[in-house]
Amino acid sequence: MALLLHLADFNERRWADGFAAALPGHKVVTRADAYDPKEIEYIFIWKPKPDAFAGLSNLKAILSLGAGVDALLRNPSLPDGVPISRFMDDDLTRRMSDYVLAQATMHQRLFTRFKRDQQARVWKQLYPAPAWDTSVGIMGLGSLGTDAIRHLKVFGYKLRGWSRTEKQIEGVETFAGAEQFDAFLAGTDILVNLLPLTAETQGILNFETFSKLKRGGIDGTGPVVINAGRGGHQKEADLVKALTDGTLGAASLDVFEVEPLPQDSPLWALDNCYITPHIAAASSERTGVAYFSKAIVDFEAGRPLPSVVDRTRGY
Amino acid sequence: MALLLHLADFNERRWADGFAAALPGHKVVTRADAYDPKEIEYIFIWKPKPDAFAGLSNLKAILSLGAGVDALLRNPSLPDGVPISRFMDDDLTRRMSDYVLAQATMHQRLFTRFKRDQQARVWKQLYPAPAWDTSVGIMGLGSLGTDAIRHLKVFGYKLRGWSRTEKQIEGVETFAGAEQFDAFLAGTDILVNLLPLTAETQGILNFETFSKLKRGGIDGTGPVVINAGRGGHQKEADLVKALTDGTLGAASLDVFEVEPLPQDSPLWALDNCYITPHIAAASSERTGVAYFSKAIVDFEAGRPLPSVVDRTRGY
Repeated sequence: MALLLHLADFNERRWADGFAAALPGHKVVTRADAYDPKEIEYIFIWKPKPDAFAGLSNLKAILSLGAGVDALLRNPSLPDGVPISRFMDDDLTRRMSDYVLAQATMHQRLFTRFKRDQQARVWKQLYPAPAWDTSVGIMGLGSLGTDAIRHLKVFGYKLRGWSRTEKQIEGVETFAGAEQFDAFLAGTDILVNLLPLTAETQGILNFETFSKLKRGGIDGTGPVVINAGRGGHQKEADLVKALTDGTLGAASLDVFEVEPLPQDSPLWALDNCYITPHIAAASSERTGVAYFSKAIVDFEAGRPLPSVVDRTRGY
Repeated sequence: MALLLHLADFNERRWADGFAAALPGHKVVTRADAYDPKEIEYIFIWKPKPDAFAGLSNLKAILSLGAGVDALLRNPSLPDGVPISRFMDDDLTRRMSDYVLAQATMHQRLFTRFKRDQQARVWKQLYPAPAWDTSVGIMGLGSLGTDAIRHLKVFGYKLRGWSRTEKQIEGVETFAGAEQFDAFLAGTDILVNLLPLTAETQGILNFETFSKLKRGGIDGTGPVVINAGRGGHQKEADLVKALTDGTLGAASLDVFEVEPLPQDSPLWALDNCYITPHIAAASSERTGVAYFSKAIVDFEAGRPLPSVVDRTRGY
C-alpha cells in the first residue's frame, strides 16, 4: 500500500519519516515526492486543497489529522464511499480539557472583575461564588465533551450537557435537540462549545443564544461563553454586541470565523474577550503517527478504522 | 458557657445569631453586648485587637476563624496554655484549591503571552506545553497543599512538594527542610505557596528563591509564583525586580506585605502580576458556624478540639 501525506501548515517530510519508521515495508510519500496517484490507498490529510483527491482512484481510507472534519466534508474532490477516520486521541482530548478548565476556572474566579480593579488600583474584596454554585453547560457530548466533564467534576461545578441526541452522563443534567436548547441555556452560567460544525450547529453562538443564558451568575457580571469548537459556530458581530452591552460578561475564544482573526476585528480590543490563536488542542506528531499507523495496520488486517465519520451526520 | 465573638471586618451580629441558633441554651455575645469577661469560656476570633484577651480569665478555648494563626500568635494579650483551634474545613480547602488550579492552568496555558499578543493584535500560534510536561511545586503539604495536589493530579501535572518535615504523597516527588529546598526549586516551573507563616518561612518568596526555579519552562517565559499563603512570605521589592528582569515570567498574588495593597505599590502596574484582594479562600458563615458549634459541643463532652495549633511550631 502507499500512504500520501497532504498536510498544509505542517512539516510533511517529518511526518512522512515518522510514518515510514512506524510502517516498515510500506511506501510513504509527500506531495513533493514522485508517485502514481493510482497506487495511493491511504491519504493523511489536513486542510486539503480543492483537488486533493483528484486521481486517487484506489483510495481505501481518508485519515484526518483534525478531529473536526467540516472543511474536509466540503471539499469538492472528496470521493463518495471512502471511509474517513478522524484523529481523536487522549493527548488531544486532554489538551482540550486543559483549555476548557483553565478558561472556566478563570471566569468563575471573576478574573475580568479583578483585572479591572487592578488596573484602577482598587482593593475591593469579593469572594467568588464557589465552583459548586456555578453551572457549566457543555454543548457537545462526544469524546471532548465527556472528558471536559470528567475534569470539571473534580471541582464540583454544577454540570449540564446538551447534544443532538439524548445522552445519560452521571452527575450531569442532560438536554437534547432543539426543543430542549432553551431550558439548557436558562440554567447555564458558563457555556462551553465543543460541538462538531454541521449545518445545524453553524452560527449557534449568536445573540439570541447569549440572551437566553442564566442571568445573575458569575457575580452578576453576566454569563460567559467559551468557544473551543469552530469559528463557524459563532457570529462575531453578535459576540461584540453581547460583550459590550452586558448580555455576556466575558468570552474565551480559540476559533474565529476567519483565521487568522483579521487585524480590524473589534474583538481584539475588548478587555472581556480572551483570544487565543486556535491553539486549544494540538494534534501532536508523536501521537498522530502512532494513532494512524495502528489504524492502517488494523484496517489492513480487517479490523475497523477508529472514529469513522458519519457523512450524513457531519462528524 | 458563654461564647464571645471578636471579628474584625465581619458582621459579628449575624455570626452571633448563627451560633445562638446552633447552640441552644448557651450564651452568645458580641463585643457590643453586655457581658462579664469572667463568664467567657470560648472566644471566636478574627484579627484580634491587642487587648482582645484582657480579663478573660476563664477561657477554655480560642477558636480562630482564619486557618492562618500568625497574627493571633503575636497578640500581646494572648493567654498561655489555652488551646487554639483553627478553621480548616472542606469549603475553605476546596475554594483554595479552586484558586490554585485557576492560576496554575492559566499560566500553564501561557495566558500572559497570549494577552500581550492580543493587545498587539498579533496572531502567533504556539501550542502550550501540556500539563504533563509542566511541573508544579507546592510549598506546604498540610490540608491545603494535599487538596491542591489532588486537584492538580487530575490534569496530569508533574508534582513536587516541599515541607518542614518529610512527607510521602503518592505521585508527588517530595522534599523536606532547608537542605532540600534548592533541589525542590530547581525542578519547579510553577511555585505555589501554601505554607503557614512562621519565623522560618517569613520572606521565603525572595529573589534568591525565584532565581533558583527551573529555567526554560512555561515556553521559556520564566517560572511562575502563586502566593496564596501570607503576605509575610513574600518580599515585594524582590517580586517587582524578578517580574521586570525576567527571573519570573508571572506571578499570581492574593496576599501582600501590607493589606490593602498600598496605592503606590509598583505591583499594580505589572501586566504579568495578577492581583486579587485576599479572596482566594473565604471562611463562610454557614460552614464556620457548623464547624465551631460542633467543636464546642464536642469539647464540652470531653472530645478533642479540631486542628489545634502547636504554638512552638507556629501552626
